[in-house]
Amino acid sequence: MPMVPHLTTALTGPILALERRFLERQTDIEQWFRSQWLEYSPPFYASVDLRNAGFKLAPVDTNLFPGGFNNLNAEFLPLCVQATMTAIEKLCPEARNLLLVPENHTRNQFYLRNVARLAHILKLAGLNVRIGSLLPEVTAPTTIEIGDGQSLLLEPLVRLAGGRRIGVEGFDPCAILLNNDLSAGVPDMLKGVHEQTVIPPLHAGWTTRRKSQHFEAYSDVAREFAAVMDIDAWLIDPMHSVCSGVNFQERSGEECLAERVGALLARIRDKYAQHGIDHEPFVIVKADAGTYGMGIMTVRDASEVIGLNRKQRNKMAVVKEGLEVSSVMIQEGVPTFETVDGGVAEPVVYMMDRYVVGGFYRVHAERGRDENLNAPGMHFKPLAFESCCSMPDPDCDPDAPPNRFYAYGVVARLALLAASVELERSRPAEEEMDEALETAMRG
Amino acid sequence: MPMVPHLTTALTGPILALERRFLERQTDIEQWFRSQWLEYSPPFYASVDLRNAGFKLAPVDTNLFPGGFNNLNAEFLPLCVQATMTAIEKLCPEARNLLLVPENHTRNQFYLRNVARLAHILKLAGLNVRIGSLLPEVTAPTTIEIGDGQSLLLEPLVRLAGGRRIGVEGFDPCAILLNNDLSAGVPDMLKGVHEQTVIPPLHAGWTTRRKSQHFEAYSDVAREFAAVMDIDAWLIDPMHSVCSGVNFQERSGEECLAERVGALLARIRDKYAQHGIDHEPFVIVKADAGTYGMGIMTVRDASEVIGLNRKQRNKMAVVKEGLEVSSVMIQEGVPTFETVDGGVAEPVVYMMDRYVVGGFYRVHAERGRDENLNAPGMHFKPLAFESCCSMPDPDCDPDAPPNRFYAYGVVARLALLAASVELERSRPAEEEMDEALETAMRG
Repeated sequence: MPMVPHLTTALTGPILALERRFLERQTDIEQWFRSQWLEYSPPFYASVDLRNAGFKLAPVDTNLFPGGFNNLNAEFLPLCVQATMTAIEKLCPEARNLLLVPENHTRNQFYLRNVARLAHILKLAGLNVRIGSLLPEVTAPTTIEIGDGQSLLLEPLVRLAGGRRIGVEGFDPCAILLNNDLSAGVPDMLKGVHEQTVIPPLHAGWTTRRKSQHFEAYSDVAREFAAVMDIDAWLIDPMHSVCSGVNFQERSGEECLAERVGALLARIRDKYAQHGIDHEPFVIVKADAGTYGMGIMTVRDASEVIGLNRKQRNKMAVVKEGLEVSSVMIQEGVPTFETVDGGVAEPVVYMMDRYVVGGFYRVHAERGRDENLNAPGMHFKPLAFESCCSMPDPDCDPDAPPNRFYAYGVVARLALLAASVELERSRPAEEEMDEALETAMRG
Repeated sequence: MPMVPHLTTALTGPILALERRFLERQTDIEQWFRSQWLEYSPPFYASVDLRNAGFKLAPVDTNLFPGGFNNLNAEFLPLCVQATMTAIEKLCPEARNLLLVPENHTRNQFYLRNVARLAHILKLAGLNVRIGSLLPEVTAPTTIEIGDGQSLLLEPLVRLAGGRRIGVEGFDPCAILLNNDLSAGVPDMLKGVHEQTVIPPLHAGWTTRRKSQHFEAYSDVAREFAAVMDIDAWLIDPMHSVCSGVNFQERSGEECLAERVGALLARIRDKYAQHGIDHEPFVIVKADAGTYGMGIMTVRDASEVIGLNRKQRNKMAVVKEGLEVSSVMIQEGVPTFETVDGGVAEPVVYMMDRYVVGGFYRVHAERGRDENLNAPGMHFKPLAFESCCSMPDPDCDPDAPPNRFYAYGVVARLALLAASVELERSRPAEEEMDEALETAMRG
């Protein structure tokens, strides 16, 4: 009987030491999280990619504009709706109208189904939802077929109330929910919106966000949590370092990269020795700003990043929407222990407000345990509720297996908390001034 | 994809008119509830007995001390835990210690399993939970076996901090959760507790609570909701009236009872004619304060309540804990349309904070469709999540059947809202003064 949903995981062996520790100390863990949420506000939603190495369980990426709600089991929707209601109650309890601003994909049916699913969740939480598109070609309401007889209505984003507000024709929202990670920069249409709540805030977009800042915050969170749990923080925290001023096309910054890759590999080797782990260390080199698994490489030796060939350089130089890579994060590689249908797999945990609302496995049949799985050829396997015994016998608890998914939910929520810390730290001064001004005007 | 869990119900026929209306207007319904919850605070928890007559769907009893958490499917626990966390955050966000005060049953294993389940939910929400017993024979910590290898530790309730607070030895709680309906009156041990939050408030107990006040509030709620939905409020509201000053043993008040039974039967007959319903009207006569299905009879003609025999009088005269019946509610009988395993069944919906968290059917093989099912011989059938198609295909939504449980969740939440209205109306002046005093002291 778990705080987080009791879900099936791909692991079948005995409960590992870390999982056991978490299961034993659930009450303390939940109490600790509650105290943290008194200090920090959770993002509206987030998804976290985890890697379970058996000896270590750590987040490797935290997405503040999750795009896989369509991959969640339909059974999780009540959890999503309940969490949405809680979030809305805090953000704008009187809200009736919410505008959803998606990515500019019109041909990615999977993504569009994510948007449709998200819109549906928001509707069920009692909101009127319309979808405002940033696409220049959407100049009039446009219906897009998204398969299975479903369709999505995209409407052009417009300025309302003499330019002070945004919405779509005939629809003035109280809140604007971004499902667009702003990789291409903050569009003019979204600038200067002060009267309406924009969630997540604009500075959560990839224009300003840096992975290294997230993992900096994560390390702080992990250290505090590990002290409470009496474990080595490394067991849940992937080490990392950064090289700024890298230009792959111009081959500048290679030395910095090689030096830090070497240093990080050495630190991992030390940790492996300390914990008696027989595994070959590796690091992941990735763009410090960016998403969609672009600009990512697995490195096992510092020499590998010197003299990259043209293909490798091209791959690393540019991420989504042509955003050029100039800062690079070097992250401790966490091998994944899990396989699904014979393919290497990593869990992706979905959260809304401060609640775990579901998850799925990202599976890639042609990748290794030490490689990025977020790449063409991947597929998704929704996590199902684990039934403790044949239904509907209410008396099955005593023999019920422990919830091994619980540990995943804990580590994912640590990353969620880190995102809150990160967003608070990176909050632009302008916004603080706006707020101070508002407070002053109210007072 | 429902706001409330997508649960299987016992009905298999086509969706009825009322259910269809609710399904079509989900967003409006959720919005309406949200606006109501800005005005009223939901009880910490509640369960509602519903009756679905096909032509009418109505609550017949609302329990503010629900005792069947053990009958909920284990799959619902994440919903319970999430709702508990939301409730706790509002009530006392800094809470670490919660004391649960159960009923004085030590031999009812089903009830004790309910307590164990509830304690577990609270623990998973991050609370330290101890169980404080009001039983005079519990003078030291006492372990009770509750079957399946599980046990429950009952500890004697004690006064702490020089008498100003209550708790158990070595445990000073911030909040006290009652799972005891106070049928025997408010025990001295619970009186004068001002520093700690007592939930539900003492006046929610049967010492002061009256079913007729609940259904008075429910009628108001139903009328408002029906106006928004553009339906006849009667479709969701069982009519009722009250006779106070009834003494079954002394045969006084029989005339009042007969007169009002007759009047109510006539009103039902009118409604049946108006809606073209071919059914024999009946009413349920029940103690205005009381629970456990005691003191309840089905009446089809006013003459039946005149000259009750000794057995009938004894049955009606006394309810739980020997509480004497002096006020009687006459409630429109709502036949139940549903059967489970060949037995007549009625759904019981569980809610925590403002969320539907699960439910089960109360089934009685030897009772009729127009009889009280809360009687010895009943059994419980947990509601299961309805899987929309074979798992784990995430793309099954378009063909998914509508959630016929949704309507049950709506009507149950109307009763929950009515309980909030009722508790606000019945709040003793003393408590208001306490609060005014506290505010004054703080300011």
